[in-house]
Amino acid sequence: MPREREQRDQPSGVRVSGKATPGNYFEDLVVGRELIHATPRTITEGDAAVYLSLTSSRYPLFCDAEFARSLGFERELVNDLLVFHVVFGNTVPDISLNALANLGYADLRYGAPVYPGDTITSTSTVIGAREASSGTQGITWVRTRGTNQRGDEVMSYVRWVLVNKRDPESPSGFDDVPVTPERVAVSDLVVPEGLDLSRFEPAVTGGRWWWEDYEPGERIHHIEGVTVEEAEHQMAARLYQNTARAHFNAHALKDQPPFHRRVIYGGHVISVARALSFNGLEHVLRILAWNGGTHANPTFAGDTIFAWSDVLERIDLGRDDAAALRLRLVAVKNNDPATEEQAFRVTDDNGRERYDSNVVLDLDYTVLVPRRPRG
Amino acid sequence: MPREREQRDQPSGVRVSGKATPGNYFEDLVVGRELIHATPRTITEGDAAVYLSLTSSRYPLFCDAEFARSLGFERELVNDLLVFHVVFGNTVPDISLNALANLGYADLRYGAPVYPGDTITSTSTVIGAREASSGTQGITWVRTRGTNQRGDEVMSYVRWVLVNKRDPESPSGFDDVPVTPERVAVSDLVVPEGLDLSRFEPAVTGGRWWWEDYEPGERIHHIEGVTVEEAEHQMAARLYQNTARAHFNAHALKDQPPFHRRVIYGGHVISVARALSFNGLEHVLRILAWNGGTHANPTFAGDTIFAWSDVLERIDLGRDDAAALRLRLVAVKNNDPATEEQAFRVTDDNGRERYDSNVVLDLDYTVLVPRRPRG
Amino acid sequence: MPREREQRDQPSGVRVSGKATPGNYFEDLVVGRELIHATPRTITEGDAAVYLSLTSSRYPLFCDAEFARSLGFERELVNDLLVFHVVFGNTVPDISLNALANLGYADLRYGAPVYPGDTITSTSTVIGAREASSGTQGITWVRTRGTNQRGDEVMSYVRWVLVNKRDPESPSGFDDVPVTPERVAVSDLVVPEGLDLSRFEPAVTGGRWWWEDYEPGERIHHIEGVTVEEAEHQMAARLYQNTARAHFNAHALKDQPPFHRRVIYGGHVISVARALSFNGLEHVLRILAWNGGTHANPTFAGDTIFAWSDVLERIDLGRDDAAALRLRLVAVKNNDPATEEQAFRVTDDNGRERYDSNVVLDLDYTVLVPRRPRG
Repeated sequence: MPREREQRDQPSGVRVSGKATPGNYFEDLVVGRELIHATPRTITEGDAAVYLSLTSSRYPLFCDAEFARSLGFERELVNDLLVFHVVFGNTVPDISLNALANLGYADLRYGAPVYPGDTITSTSTVIGAREASSGTQGITWVRTRGTNQRGDEVMSYVRWVLVNKRDPESPSGFDDVPVTPERVAVSDLVVPEGLDLSRFEPAVTGGRWWWEDYEPGERIHHIEGVTVEEAEHQMAARLYQNTARAHFNAHALKDQPPFHRRVIYGGHVISVARALSFNGLEHVLRILAWNGGTHANPTFAGDTIFAWSDVLERIDLGRDDAAALRLRLVAVKNNDPATEEQAFRVTDDNGRERYDSNVVLDLDYTVLVPRRPRG
Repeated sequence: MPREREQRDQPSGVRVSGKATPGNYFEDLVVGRELIHATPRTITEGDAAVYLSLTSSRYPLFCDAEFARSLGFERELVNDLLVFHVVFGNTVPDISLNALANLGYADLRYGAPVYPGDTITSTSTVIGAREASSGTQGITWVRTRGTNQRGDEVMSYVRWVLVNKRDPESPSGFDDVPVTPERVAVSDLVVPEGLDLSRFEPAVTGGRWWWEDYEPGERIHHIEGVTVEEAEHQMAARLYQNTARAHFNAHALKDQPPFHRRVIYGGHVISVARALSFNGLEHVLRILAWNGGTHANPTFAGDTIFAWSDVLERIDLGRDDAAALRLRLVAVKNNDPATEEQAFRVTDDNGRERYDSNVVLDLDYTVLVPRRPRG
Repeated sequence: MPREREQRDQPSGVRVSGKATPGNYFEDLVVGRELIHATPRTITEGDAAVYLSLTSSRYPLFCDAEFARSLGFERELVNDLLVFHVVFGNTVPDISLNALANLGYADLRYGAPVYPGDTITSTSTVIGAREASSGTQGITWVRTRGTNQRGDEVMSYVRWVLVNKRDPESPSGFDDVPVTPERVAVSDLVVPEGLDLSRFEPAVTGGRWWWEDYEPGERIHHIEGVTVEEAEHQMAARLYQNTARAHFNAHALKDQPPFHRRVIYGGHVISVARALSFNGLEHVLRILAWNGGTHANPTFAGDTIFAWSDVLERIDLGRDDAAALRLRLVAVKNNDPATEEQAFRVTDDNGRERYDSNVVLDLDYTVLVPRRPRG
């Protein structure tokens, strides 16, 4: 825990300066505080290639420039999740360097498409803070926005994190829990401007299923599983300039309960699960929103990740060519839910409901899907 | 084996859909069937960089834009093998998701150069199918083509794979073995249009040997060896959107004979061996053809790969500035053939000839090489 | 040791050729010899992305095109260290394939900025050579230069390496030690042409400290540590086309004292330490020079790297907007110098001073830093 990592006495003649920042603590993140996060990032086709090599995403809007152009885009887009990770990564030094856990996400909406070459800046506003009864930590809520070099919002979301206090002895008095919507309002779903599906070619995705084919209550097992290596999740988190100790510093972590080892960046699990989800959701164009999301359990190097999707809702967007699907994307480790018994929520000995210990992701999100062409 | 992985009963209220595809089985791949493979791919300079970081290829046509321009190209080309891997990767969901082994390649020819930014589409025709006597599997032959966004063919090849049957009980009656040429016809070798070697600068490659210097019967040991890590071969296969379970799913594979672990994508071994081959073949410009190729034995993470080349044939292309060499590229694991005893083919106890167990690749291919400049 | 790796007898009928080069030996590197290193390299934004995924560098001049433009550059620059690694990597086949150790660097200066798309050629001149008393090896000094496609020098440096002799029996008589400057002359520090800090925006770096704030004698612990994996350092070295056996060939190395395993390319340690140094040195724009550098001890996969910076000197460059800082960047393995006891230099039992065994890098270098704006 960072506050225990005070710098020791140094050899005589050396003055240790405080120029390196240990990151913000719970007390620093006062409701209403605005943060402009450092190191805006130009996302290039190089980043897209590294992302692909770490995830094997096959959704064609992000890897087929001709397909993207045929739908009215300038060229292939930067993967929606790569955009999220870069925006998120830039918040880490200010928000979550001293975080103990990423507790959840809400009201995440995508805006303007991001193209290779765009430069993304992240800013956040603290919208809630509640000290835990223990006094050693608290929950901080932030609304984070990513904007491109023209000032267009490319995404916006709320997340809440468990953050260490600087001073466990002094109560902060913070007790301000914001209201977050249970789902992103349909009116907040942004269909990319100029989208034109008249030339949508099903052979490009290889899928056979249109929006009308997906039924609420339906579960799609995505069949395959992917084992994640230490080098892979580290490269992913580094690509996003996410410097959180939990992913990188085996020396410090070996003495740190409860895991005593590196934990995979939860966002990498989202990327892997979303890439797996292509098998069965081929026509999905892009993500419009995350309604909510939880990293249900930690994932470690050597774990094999599987995924399924539950169809939650079909959402009409008032257009003939495309509509939205609300899905639950669940990632599971070291058990193939398509062929082996796998619970989702279980009741523990104390009668409390929690996620099964193999479940590592529960993401409620909304995607854009072509409607079945007429005639 | 996929057919044993039927989806189990699900919790009440959840309807498991069949929208995710388990891939084609032997019976699905009827001779004459045409397949347009999904997710065409824009190959970028990002992909080239990831490829380089995984292989250390030094052939300058693929990493030196100025050299490429000096020979009449627009800029540096996408590495010939990266093109192959992308074309191949796109065939996996349709051809080899249920394949047990990649048995061989034939008649592979390169066509139009691929530049960063080009978008490659893969299509295949089933040209042969023969059920095995066991009835549980069969061999399928396909001719695969890669074309760019202008419709130019960038490569074409035949491969054959051992594929599981969907229904081992019902004989398919398939018994159709195609004729494949023992070597690519000289008239099918495509020298890139506009190639002009008048400004070829030997210092760029650092090599001293021209086409005339290579003698059939000569063996070149490429000296160095490279150890392959799990993260590396997974990243390579993912970069090519090759989703074959054998490379990724340690959870499923641990119970699966005969290896009980992840197998390195055989194409990655080709990439590594070809990169090693630069030492001794520096002036080689690009690959024109594969006459035949076999993944002689599997390779696993932790193995160290060495390579040698045998010069098989000098081929005159009717031009003064360049000609072709037919080479055999052999990759060996965990034994340095330059300094340690290493057999190539051995006779086993049953009197059958097979590859030595260290040999992992036997690739008969043809490359384009500058001729010694006159006076 | 390469000279022990003579090629063994081959099967009858196979003639082993000498076309693959074992690299130069000490005797080959005669003072005055000029070497044009092979395979010039076009550095792309793909390379920059792979570099970032392996280091997590956050210095914005290299990842934020808008920031770079605001300071008068065309776009984001290629990271100074990536340029070094590419220039260095190209020298390996000629200089250090048979090197036993990289002993040091001196008088390294950066020149013209490198942009994605530039093609870099490396050349070297042998400036010194001294045979060791053992007669089995010697020290070779080279001055290496990198130039872009317009012929502008992008960097220049001296390094010296311990190289095996081809023939330990025959004394070379080489005894020529060059004079290298203890530090790069201030007049040799090149501030990029057109640099204009009038629009420098501190929020971009997130830092609070200007040139005036850094005091000689001050030590900045950069707080975090990063564990390096085998796949990561191999990918880094491959990205630079650095083919030195020590980083890749586990099969050969397992029998080779003293380490019996792969050693991490020392340059990767520099990259990691420099990336860590962002925390506390946020406003630093680019590297101007290395005054000297030593890989104090080897680093292996699994090691966790920490870093501190000592402020050595403030250097006025005669401009109002920017000046130089001379820093000592020290990297340490498997011990957190901010919270645990860590010596730098120690005296061994024989009374000889050496680096503490955890110290892996001692780099004396000079960087460009904005001065505090007036008014």
